[in-house]
This record gives sequence, C-alpha cells and structure tokens, in this order.
Amino acid sequence: MTSWLQIPKNSPFSLANIPFGIISSTKIVSRVPAIAIGDHVLNLNAFANSGGFAQLPAILPHLSVFSQPTLNAFAALGRPFHRQVREYIQNVFRADTQFPQILKDNAALQQEALLPLSEVTNHVPMQIGDYTDFYAGLNHAYNVGVLFRGPENALQPNYKHLPVGYHGRASSVVASGTPIRRPNGQILANPTATPKAPTFSPCKKLDIELELAAFVCKSNELGSPVPIDNAEEHIFGLVLMNDWSARDIQAWEYVPLGPFNAKNFATTITPWVVLYDALEPFRAAGLEPGNRESLLPYLREKQATNAFDIPLEVEITNAGGKPTLISRSNAKNLLFSFPQMLAHHTITGCNMNPGDLLGSGTLSGTEPQTQGSILEQTNGKNPITLADGTQRLFLEDGDTVTLRGVAGTEGSYVGFGDCVGTILPAPKLA
Amino acid sequence: MTSWLQIPKNSPFSLANIPFGIISSTKIVSRVPAIAIGDHVLNLNAFANSGGFAQLPAILPHLSVFSQPTLNAFAALGRPFHRQVREYIQNVFRADTQFPQILKDNAALQQEALLPLSEVTNHVPMQIGDYTDFYAGLNHAYNVGVLFRGPENALQPNYKHLPVGYHGRASSVVASGTPIRRPNGQILANPTATPKAPTFSPCKKLDIELELAAFVCKSNELGSPVPIDNAEEHIFGLVLMNDWSARDIQAWEYVPLGPFNAKNFATTITPWVVLYDALEPFRAAGLEPGNRESLLPYLREKQATNAFDIPLEVEITNAGGKPTLISRSNAKNLLFSFPQMLAHHTITGCNMNPGDLLGSGTLSGTEPQTQGSILEQTNGKNPITLADGTQRLFLEDGDTVTLRGVAGTEGSYVGFGDCVGTILPAPKLA
Repeated sequence: MTSWLQIPKNSPFSLANIPFGIISSTKIVSRVPAIAIGDHVLNLNAFANSGGFAQLPAILPHLSVFSQPTLNAFAALGRPFHRQVREYIQNVFRADTQFPQILKDNAALQQEALLPLSEVTNHVPMQIGDYTDFYAGLNHAYNVGVLFRGPENALQPNYKHLPVGYHGRASSVVASGTPIRRPNGQILANPTATPKAPTFSPCKKLDIELELAAFVCKSNELGSPVPIDNAEEHIFGLVLMNDWSARDIQAWEYVPLGPFNAKNFATTITPWVVLYDALEPFRAAGLEPGNRESLLPYLREKQATNAFDIPLEVEITNAGGKPTLISRSNAKNLLFSFPQMLAHHTITGCNMNPGDLLGSGTLSGTEPQTQGSILEQTNGKNPITLADGTQRLFLEDGDTVTLRGVAGTEGSYVGFGDCVGTILPAPKLA
Repeated sequence: MTSWLQIPKNSPFSLANIPFGIISSTKIVSRVPAIAIGDHVLNLNAFANSGGFAQLPAILPHLSVFSQPTLNAFAALGRPFHRQVREYIQNVFRADTQFPQILKDNAALQQEALLPLSEVTNHVPMQIGDYTDFYAGLNHAYNVGVLFRGPENALQPNYKHLPVGYHGRASSVVASGTPIRRPNGQILANPTATPKAPTFSPCKKLDIELELAAFVCKSNELGSPVPIDNAEEHIFGLVLMNDWSARDIQAWEYVPLGPFNAKNFATTITPWVVLYDALEPFRAAGLEPGNRESLLPYLREKQATNAFDIPLEVEITNAGGKPTLISRSNAKNLLFSFPQMLAHHTITGCNMNPGDLLGSGTLSGTEPQTQGSILEQTNGKNPITLADGTQRLFLEDGDTVTLRGVAGTEGSYVGFGDCVGTILPAPKLA
C-alpha cells in the first residue's frame, strides 16, 4: 500500500496506521480532530467541511463529530464507524485511490487541510472521564515484588486471578511534550528511625512506568457489566503512556489505600490514538493464555491472542547530552488483555464512558535492560550509565524521557509516536 | 430570620441554609440550577430570566451560569459570588425583605419559579472531573485497623502525618434515591484454603460508609500547589455521602493498590450543595488540632476550628419494615479538615477543577452505636437487630439506608437532606 503523498519510510504513521488526534495551530485556533500520516496531518474539520467525506455516505449524518474539540463524539459512533472512516482515509491517500478528486487532485483542499506535522500542536485527544491504571505487567509486578518482599512472596495471592488496578488521576493526564514538574511531598528520609517521621522534600526517586493505555469508546449502563466477548467493541484505540512515579513519596503514603500523591502530579500519553483495527495484524498471545481454566469464566477469553506484538523502547537524554537507550521491551508482556481489564472493571456494574482511559501496567520483560521502570533496573543502588558517562539511580532535573512503540516493518510501520517528558525542578515553596 | 414563605420548622432547608442543586421535572425538561427552601425549590433559571436578580447588579453579567445543566459554572465564579447570591436569596425570602417586588409580591414569578420540592427530580449537581476519597475519620481508621491488625498496630505510621486518600470512581457517583445494585465479584469463600482461590459471587458483605464530601469550585494550575491558607477559597460546599463498600470483594482485591471494584459500583451523595458559608456558624475543632506542631508546615492551619459540628445519623429500613436508627455520629470526627485534604492533594502540583469531589472518610465516633460503617458495629459477627426483630451483619436486598446530617436548631436548621439508597439484588449473569 503506497501513497501519492510522500511518507518517510521510518514514519510510525504509515498508510497502514491512520491514528486519530486533536490538533491546533497558529491558524487553527479551536482544537479540531485530525489524523497523522507521515510528516503531515489531515485536519478532519476542514476536510469534512469541504466535502472530503462525499464518497462515504454512512458518515455524512455524523460530520459534526469532526468539529468537536475532543474525539469523544467520534469515538462514541462505535467501531464500525471508526473502521469505515479509517479505510476511507487510507483509500483517499492510496497511490491508486478510487477517489482522486477528493484530495490527490484537489490542490485547494490539500492546501487547506493537509498540514506539516511540525506546524501543529497536539492535545490530550479525549475528555477523560475516569482514568484507571492496571498492574497487569506480570514481570514488573514480579520484579517490584521481589524488591519489596523477596522472590517467595513477590506476587500477591490475587495477582493471577484478576487484573489488579486502581483509580488514577484524570486531570493531570497530559500530552507528550508537556514538561513534568518534579513533585514535592512527604518522604521518609530516615526509614529506620523510631517513631517514623516524614520530611518535606522534592521527590528524590522520580521514576517512569512504560505502559500502553486504551481509550474507551462505548458506554455501559450503571449496573450492567460488559461481557468479556463484547469488551473489545468498547475499546477505541491505544496510546503509549508514561505513568510518572515518585517512589519515595509512594513508599511512605501507599499503605493501606494505594498510591496517591506518588502518581497524581502527571501522566504523559502520546496524543495519537492508534485504532484497535490498525493493530489487528500484530495480535499475539500475552504472557499466559487469557482463556486458561484457572480464570473465573467472566475473564476467560475465546482466543488467546488479545495482546499485541509491539516492540517498545525507553530512552533517557540528559540536558545537553545524547540519547541513551536504557530498555527494550514489548507490549506482549501483559498477563491480562484490555478486554479482560474492561470486563473486570465493569463486573460490579461500574459504568464506563467514551473517553475513559485504562492503563495496562508497566511493560517489563524478563531479561536485563528490558524493564519498564528505572527502579527495576537500579533498585536504587546499581546506577545506569548514560552516553555522557553520568550515572542515574533515578531521574534528575533536565532529563528527558522518551518512550517509543512501533510495530510492523519499514514503510508500513504502525506506531504511537514519541511519548516525551522533560523533568523541571520542583517548585520552591515558602 | 423568618420568611414570608411557609417553611416547616423541622426542614433542613431553612432560610439559614439555601443549598444549591440541579433539578428537572415533568415541566422543566432540561436540567437547571435551583435552591431548596423548606418544602420548595426556586428554579434559578426561571428566576434569573424573569429579572429575579435585578437588585444584585454584580451577578447580572454572569446570569448564564443559571441556565447550565450543572453547577460547575456557578461554582467557578468563586466564593464571593456564592456568598452574595445566597445572601440576596435570603433577603428575597425574608419576611422583611428589602425587595418585596422581586418575589414576595410577584405572584406570577412565584407561580413560574417556586415549585414544590416533591414535584422535582434532583440530579448529581456537578460534572465531577475527579473524585478522591480520603480516610480522615480517625475513629473509623482505628476501629477497622483493630479488626485487621489489632490495637497495637491499628493505625499505620503515616496516618497522623498526612490525610490518607485514594482516587475513586467519578462515573458511578449518583444522587440520593438512586437504587443500588448489589455487585458481583471475586470473593475468597474459604480464606484458609491453600492456595487461595476466589469464587465468583454476589457480594455478601455489603456495607456503607458515612461521609461528608466537598465540591471544589476553584482551579489550580498543574504544578502549582494550593497553600493551606488559601485552600478554603477553593471549596464550594459540602454534601453527605454514602461510600457503599463491598467488604468481601475489598478484602481479596485491595493488596497492594487499594480498593477498586469494592467501591466502584456506586457512591451516593445528597444532591443539595450546602455552601461553606452556610456552615460557618457550626465551625468546630476536629479530633486533634489542625495546627499541631507534629504536622509539616504545608498542612498546618492558622485556626484549629476547620471541622463542623454537624450531628449525623444512619438509619436502616428493611423492605416492609420500620426505620431503625443504628448510629449517631458527628462531622467533627475528622483528623484532617477539607482545606488540609486539598493542600495535601495539590502539594505535588496535582491540578484540581471545579466539580472535583473530595470525600472525608468515614465519620465514626468512639462510643457504641456511633460508627459510620456496619463492619465496625458487627465485625461480621455481632448482629444489629432491626425494629422488626430481623438481624443484620451486613446489608440485605431490599434494605434502604438513609444518612442524615443536620446542624443548628429548630426553625433554622442547616442540613443536607436525606442520603438514601435501596439495595437491589445482584444481576444474574450467564
């Protein structure tokens, strides 16, 4: 599948992808929906207003979804619509497009709606109602469990029976590129002192968590669980996510109700939502079959390939330095799939809405330098050496963390784009 | 302060209160803001549209806030505006009103805007962005800690240093009167078996939590903590809250990330927001001074009276039975105040928005029958006897739970109205 538009071969946004996002620019003052393709974006508001969807009659009654400042309304149309719109846009951009008059031979509309990616600003693509973060990265849970409780008791008894999760903070989910302010908080400077007394301090153990996250597109009523076999129809698409974590704040606060301030200061996501359909060719088995008999029936999947084979990487770049690749992992490192997470989340009758965000948990491998958090690599003791020779136990001010995830092969990559954040110093408080 | 309108002496909505809510009715199809007064509501949309605010020039540029389907826009005007509007409405309803022409002598506007409370439906009054539940009810935390870990280790080391809290589920916050569907989920039917294996079951230990909750009215930017001395300006007002809790689901799932499915199926709030100003006469000290020196400075309050003296009660009515009062407590049973919760929540830079909801934690006393949860009273072993002689270790299908909170004295009560929910049977799943 080649395009009449020049698409760099290494772009994560090949014609096989067509991810959806929300953009603005100096010329587009109100936020509008767009898709990314190569080094360009297609402004879907301008495209729709100028008859771009003329050859897709099914979407014509719903064109108002493309003039919204979020993707919620488009997502709520449902997956059959997302599929048609994506395939239509692929058709429009194909070298052998059936509809050359729409864009290929329409210089005016190209001029109006096709913009360089470098000239637009991306935004959090959906109005997030609730954000839930799961802990389904088995290797991460095991690695962290070993650090805290030793290998014998690394995983809690519930861990393989349900996707452990907790409610996260929706307001502080930000788009890639947003600087991350190091948090202040309570830490236990001297853990062995009695009685334990906290110190007020900038976080000294600032960490990352490499995750995938799914946006929900379909509601369920309060009191009505989503059956596992229908759960996939409720998922709009995926983004990459960095669940920034203040380990020292977390260690002091998290008993007995879980992480709170350790996570609420920021969560970064890639701004382009990769549709579930675009990831279909990369379906793969997760860490243990999702239809294993030890699972209660409401979590048992018909097929065992509800994870995705997406290579992932983590890079740290210190201020003025060169990038250092510190980890390579894969999105397959999940014990539970997103459909399982959604079925579990709603089994109590909890209602979900378009725009709700589900984080996967940290995607670590089992080998050295495949971990999705710095804590797992260093244990706060064994430093990572960066390209310029400086060392890290945790993140320092000025460090930039970049997560990447790209599936497929050159020329037809399906990727998320970079998930980037640079650490700013903690605010000085009176 | 008496009114020309007949207000029952035992009404929680006296002229001293003037709580704000969102209503609809068979005649008012779109949701609109209103205040409650005695057995009536004043439709603020109709009131504003008919010149009701003519004598309050400051609000005239902002009248559009009264045509919104939530209170978010009104709340975002800030507390000086809430104060003026409340005082103006009190003036309008006073027997010796300065503005008799506005409503007292205006039969047409009374006819249009003043409706019987019994004829309107209440709704969740704000679009809730994020909902956070704290655990600042010291006696509850102690009582539950004793059950789980014994009196020696009842409170965790962090407990008196920070308001422990966790993110809750915003989508399932419902208005008083909404039926509560008993959740299904994973429970450990046989906790002593090895290895531990869960059973799928309707919750068998369905419980309540008696809480106050605060709605936020003012934003802070991501990265900018709210100083403790300013925190009160960020609070719109309070409601009563029942944080329904599935204790058996909770016991199995909550390690290590806290309660999730045990709480996400429903949280009931009273639909009338009682402004912080209306509660001013009931300021009282909480359980330990909020300015104690053991607190880190960011949590130290100037005054030690940031709790409220509001008597609370919990009543259970079984299907066809009479109400049984099972508990009397008081809103003073808090170790941390709402301003402290807000200062702590934002100390990392976490951004908050109008409509965010902060639960206090369960408000238990120290004496028998002052507990805010059933678990604390029965420990799952010592039943409560209802008026008809039936017994309860936890809630049964058909039980109705009513929470009440009323401060002040007859004729000038400031209360929340009833916080009610009736338990429906769990859904039968294939």
